Amino acid sequence: MSDGEFDIIARYFDRHVAREDVLLGIGDDAAVLSLPANRRLVIAMDTLVDGVHFPKGTAAADIGYRALAVNLSDLAAMGAQPEWMTLSLCAPVSDPAWFDGFSRGLFELADRYQVALVGGDTVKGPLAVTVQIAGTVEADRWLTRAGARPGDLLFVSGVPGEAAAGLAVIQGSLPVTSATRHLRQRFLRPEPRVSLGRCLRNMATAAMDVSDGLLTDLDKLAGASGCGARIDVDALPLSSALLDTFARDACIDYALAGGDDYELLFTIPPQRVVELPSDVACTQIGVMTEREVQCWRDGNPFVPRRRGYDHFDM
Amino acid sequence: MSDGEFDIIARYFDRHVAREDVLLGIGDDAAVLSLPANRRLVIAMDTLVDGVHFPKGTAAADIGYRALAVNLSDLAAMGAQPEWMTLSLCAPVSDPAWFDGFSRGLFELADRYQVALVGGDTVKGPLAVTVQIAGTVEADRWLTRAGARPGDLLFVSGVPGEAAAGLAVIQGSLPVTSATRHLRQRFLRPEPRVSLGRCLRNMATAAMDVSDGLLTDLDKLAGASGCGARIDVDALPLSSALLDTFARDACIDYALAGGDDYELLFTIPPQRVVELPSDVACTQIGVMTEREVQCWRDGNPFVPRRRGYDHFDM
Repeated sequence: MSDGEFDIIARYFDRHVAREDVLLGIGDDAAVLSLPANRRLVIAMDTLVDGVHFPKGTAAADIGYRALAVNLSDLAAMGAQPEWMTLSLCAPVSDPAWFDGFSRGLFELADRYQVALVGGDTVKGPLAVTVQIAGTVEADRWLTRAGARPGDLLFVSGVPGEAAAGLAVIQGSLPVTSATRHLRQRFLRPEPRVSLGRCLRNMATAAMDVSDGLLTDLDKLAGASGCGARIDVDALPLSSALLDTFARDACIDYALAGGDDYELLFTIPPQRVVELPSDVACTQIGVMTEREVQCWRDGNPFVPRRRGYDHFDM
Repeated sequence: MSDGEFDIIARYFDRHVAREDVLLGIGDDAAVLSLPANRRLVIAMDTLVDGVHFPKGTAAADIGYRALAVNLSDLAAMGAQPEWMTLSLCAPVSDPAWFDGFSRGLFELADRYQVALVGGDTVKGPLAVTVQIAGTVEADRWLTRAGARPGDLLFVSGVPGEAAAGLAVIQGSLPVTSATRHLRQRFLRPEPRVSLGRCLRNMATAAMDVSDGLLTDLDKLAGASGCGARIDVDALPLSSALLDTFARDACIDYALAGGDDYELLFTIPPQRVVELPSDVACTQIGVMTEREVQCWRDGNPFVPRRRGYDHFDM
């Protein structure tokens, strides 16, 4: 027997919420939440579509995890603290095992950041997941893409390109090695840089998360800031997992143009570099300039083969 | 030439927002909003899927309007004031005429309620629209489904059943008359009862919006309140548009079980009925009881043919 919509919500998504600021959670027409007076509300919304944002056949738990991770990453890029989420789940059939896996993946990450699921919608249709995340940030300052200035140093967290390489591993059914397993996980289970974003709030001049590819996203950050940037391709952090699996030039392509990393790209004045937290690897990959986003490699201008990914670039 | 994702957002959705509480709108990783200190945040999220929540071939402007209307209705049921929304639009192709129509329908309603679009996502995939609405409500009181008491009078706004009848008109391609045209519009362009909800905030003991069918939704309200209800079928407000188009028994079916009305169902102590606003027709259709939700017709218990609609009732 299949579950009805209300059974699905009750069984898989309606969990006791320990947060005192959730005045009314799942089960009414809307949720009612209490925001501290000295905080601003920060909201973002991202959708994952089956076969577009993850390969068909991706495990339900990975989809659940990922749907929240990409949203947490948006809040990280603002320097905000995640607080509550709503979920719209569009699924073709009512499969208890699938819902169980999905909710486990979702709550694994939600619990880590103490994010409460406070509402949403469960509908029948082609598989797609939309999460809206709501967070808070101190009223005095939050991060945007718009504050970078020429001379600021350009940093990225983690290893950009691993997620796109991981997708290639999955889609190409590459042999399982510790390297390919690592890359695969980096696509399926991106680590939102929430605590790094919180640290950067009073330190970085601009920040965004890398979802569409490093160069495409850097174009946006530079454009919003009204300046340019120079990337030193030789400074890109290429992991041994990348280099063990792909040729160096392919690794550079993944690093510059691969999407789905959900690392933070940020700019910081040189004198503040010493304040960077040490628990997340951050690499200086370039510097902000007066105009144009350019790549340099071995001391020469370098034109990458592609710059990023646009879901409607048809 | 088709538009890329960022062009679509810039051209159709990124409008100048005059609201001072939108500290950062579309174009960054997230929106930053300012909430008055004495207000609570109220959020809801609803998804419309092509061929499930509206017939395939529905005009883009009607889909845009409806996607917001169903969300405004959720806030209305809480007595909340709508403020901001985010939009996730999943569309199979990048069709400028479609996006233009969709955004016109969406903003027609958004402008009426001064709701600002502050963020979201545009992705490629099967047509589906998710809107998250955020509103505010006074900190002292909001409406829920849970406050009804035996003896409270049961009211509904407008004419429940017209939307389901309108869907039948569309799906059955019934001849165009002023009656069928009215019913059709009631499905395509439901009127969210925002101002009524605001008036009811300090008057009603419980409220919800009728989205899945009057009886199904009344079951939820009565269940949440721990009481029962008795509906007087003869008191249901059947419009001339309904009665001109369908047999009386079919009209009663639509009124009791038809979804998509987005009218408010609410309970109110008898002594407060005089306070009801006069600008929205509200009809007393029953009374809250100790237990069970029952229908009566012509002085006898009446068992309706169906009670409502569950999207996962397969």
